[in-house]
Amino acid sequence: MNFIIIGGDAAGMSAASRAKRSVPEMNVIVLEKTEDVSYSACGMPYNIAEADRDMDDLVVRKADVFREKQGIQLLTGHLVDMIDTKNRTVSGTVQKSGETFRYAFDRLLIATGGRPKIPALPGFDLPGVLALKNLADGRKIKDYIREHPVQKTIIIGMGYIGLEMAEALRERGIDVEMVKPGPDLLPWMPRELAGVVAEELTAKAVQLHLGANITEIEKSGDRLKVVCEDRTLSADLVLVAVGIDPNSEIAAQAGIETGIGNAIAVDRSLRTSSEAVYAAGDCADAFHVVTGEKAWIPLALRANRGGWAVADNVCGKPTQLKGIAGTAVFKVFDLEVARTGLTVEESSRYGFDPVDVTIQTRSRAHRHPGAQVIHVHLIGDKKSSRLLGAQMVGREGVAHRINAAAIALHAKMTVAEFSQTDLAYAPPFGPVWDPLLTAANQLLKRV
Amino acid sequence: MNFIIIGGDAAGMSAASRAKRSVPEMNVIVLEKTEDVSYSACGMPYNIAEADRDMDDLVVRKADVFREKQGIQLLTGHLVDMIDTKNRTVSGTVQKSGETFRYAFDRLLIATGGRPKIPALPGFDLPGVLALKNLADGRKIKDYIREHPVQKTIIIGMGYIGLEMAEALRERGIDVEMVKPGPDLLPWMPRELAGVVAEELTAKAVQLHLGANITEIEKSGDRLKVVCEDRTLSADLVLVAVGIDPNSEIAAQAGIETGIGNAIAVDRSLRTSSEAVYAAGDCADAFHVVTGEKAWIPLALRANRGGWAVADNVCGKPTQLKGIAGTAVFKVFDLEVARTGLTVEESSRYGFDPVDVTIQTRSRAHRHPGAQVIHVHLIGDKKSSRLLGAQMVGREGVAHRINAAAIALHAKMTVAEFSQTDLAYAPPFGPVWDPLLTAANQLLKRV
Repeated sequence: MNFIIIGGDAAGMSAASRAKRSVPEMNVIVLEKTEDVSYSACGMPYNIAEADRDMDDLVVRKADVFREKQGIQLLTGHLVDMIDTKNRTVSGTVQKSGETFRYAFDRLLIATGGRPKIPALPGFDLPGVLALKNLADGRKIKDYIREHPVQKTIIIGMGYIGLEMAEALRERGIDVEMVKPGPDLLPWMPRELAGVVAEELTAKAVQLHLGANITEIEKSGDRLKVVCEDRTLSADLVLVAVGIDPNSEIAAQAGIETGIGNAIAVDRSLRTSSEAVYAAGDCADAFHVVTGEKAWIPLALRANRGGWAVADNVCGKPTQLKGIAGTAVFKVFDLEVARTGLTVEESSRYGFDPVDVTIQTRSRAHRHPGAQVIHVHLIGDKKSSRLLGAQMVGREGVAHRINAAAIALHAKMTVAEFSQTDLAYAPPFGPVWDPLLTAANQLLKRV
Repeated sequence: MNFIIIGGDAAGMSAASRAKRSVPEMNVIVLEKTEDVSYSACGMPYNIAEADRDMDDLVVRKADVFREKQGIQLLTGHLVDMIDTKNRTVSGTVQKSGETFRYAFDRLLIATGGRPKIPALPGFDLPGVLALKNLADGRKIKDYIREHPVQKTIIIGMGYIGLEMAEALRERGIDVEMVKPGPDLLPWMPRELAGVVAEELTAKAVQLHLGANITEIEKSGDRLKVVCEDRTLSADLVLVAVGIDPNSEIAAQAGIETGIGNAIAVDRSLRTSSEAVYAAGDCADAFHVVTGEKAWIPLALRANRGGWAVADNVCGKPTQLKGIAGTAVFKVFDLEVARTGLTVEESSRYGFDPVDVTIQTRSRAHRHPGAQVIHVHLIGDKKSSRLLGAQMVGREGVAHRINAAAIALHAKMTVAEFSQTDLAYAPPFGPVWDPLLTAANQLLKRV
């Protein structure tokens, strides 16, 4: 059996490894357009922060290992440009030689990932205007900083990649200004929590330009000018981090159904609308465990898990995924910022009747030295009393605490049930009532 | 209505405050035998670690606040020695004056807590042989260290209070040896995890004497000798930390049912076998959410929560508690040690068919600087596929991670369901697959 996989990062290589391990006689072929496979994309900002660290440090497993030790036919530099679902073939071009190829598949996995959104405005293609998605992008940024006297960078966008890059560049001693057209930093958070993040950025000398409509980027001597309607900013380097789009066009062109966010629509078995074709990772959608509806939240864990599930299904071990809770965490300098489940706005949109609380508590017990403020935002449904979402910001004790709320969402717990859970306590690690429980006790009065 | 509460710490004062807030006209009387109320008992080792910190720093709310601001009749130094359930009275003695008192109750809460177990062996009553349970004990230890040239302490017992005290005393520059009759450090853990704790203790110059049967303690000049069958240890101070017993005798004498661990038996409403009498905190038992059976695991959160539940029930808001998962965390020098749910041995004892895995993974992403080893032990039931328990040891990322497993136990998740949950990932905070998920993926092959 020929199992062909388009894309050699998290979902693709997870699927390839697991399928080959499960059915050693299976012919597993991975077609990857770049020369890089199996790397930690999320680690790039932290790698860029350290001038002396090799970008290849992020490669989790080398191509040779997949080829020689695992017996996977891993073809890098292979760009697929057509899927024929009827004849079950994929075809494309070898990037270096220009030769064309065509492979027949019994089962196909589309794991083409995503790509950075680039605004269709003048100047976004200038040298020194860079985005960050794959390892080649990471190398470009790192090389650019090495080869140019970069004293200041403008980051367009204030999502988590933009924020992680702001920290990375400040570590390198580079001035950072961030700019976005929208009026709010982290608009999905309550203003109280977003304000804590804004303060941290200001304290670390990152200047924020909110509500700045960008019209173009211009070259101006050795520098770049980001021209907005009401101001013009200038810098040595411009990073574009306004989100990503799924690489789903190749699927759409083959007549495969796409859905939310233009991602490839898959069922709980990760199967697309075409019987022998699966999709996983950033290019595919998923079910949300809170709404039961489709969601497109491209994150690393579900890519890996999706790859495994596809491999199991292809290898005759039927596997269905329950779905995602949208759990995420990121670091912004000394802050941990985390979320799981729905926001108030999303809760309303999906037909819930949301009530919420935002509390402040401490990261350690009463009077325990070194305690920090923890901010918790918790959302419940007035109709069903279910817990719908949680968000937290703090200097410690946030990143892993959010998982407790994530599990409660998977279990469809009510706020009352969640408020009665037996969470860990010791003075160095939190108050007797965990911050999440204190928030739940407050929310209980409103649901 | 007269609501009388025996005991003025976590459960007692939580109940008093909540009842008075809920029904201001209620006559809420608290009878506390010591002069201290509402303090953080768990904070004592950390307070003792700092020579200059006042022990009263651990008082969460002062007696006057309860009396004057909240209108609670808080009577300290009042030792109750009899409960008459038929005539609904409690009686006892005022400690300072020797006067007797008798109060009639409509509802009674027994929140008498626990007391350190003291082996019935010669010498455990010598000066310089001290235990740690209430604030007076804490003061005694701190005073003893101030007033005597304590260079070395022997701690009898290796539970979490003993281990926290070992750290506290080492912080003060005092040598520490620990001794227990049993052959194993932390016998409820797999040897691999307990070994990590033992190594940490050794690295911090704490000497462990396992399997040492103590026969007596002797005074020897200015020093104390702990005489064991096969060795004799000597020190300037001996701490006894071999566990606690519930203060349930007063209930038992009144004909109130006691059960597991001699704790007062309560139903899910925290009601005892006597209709108008409730019990909460360290003196009472609870339902375990994994076994559905009674358990006695005296910890701070359930004491506070139990106090609230009793107040609600007394105030006409029927409240039932689902139970405890036995979630606990403690710090041993630079290690975080956490558990929730059952051990393998407990799983067998309660009729499950346990299978388990013990894995090692990292606290941060692939190649992320500063990553530490995390050890995870996970237990499932072969019959029902349910998750039964989790234990973790590591230098970071353990204390709050355990809560995810605790919530899964409350939700009675299977190992498969748990393995599919959407947990947070960012390189500074963990691998893509959270350590708990990696363990769950392994355990999935065995259930």
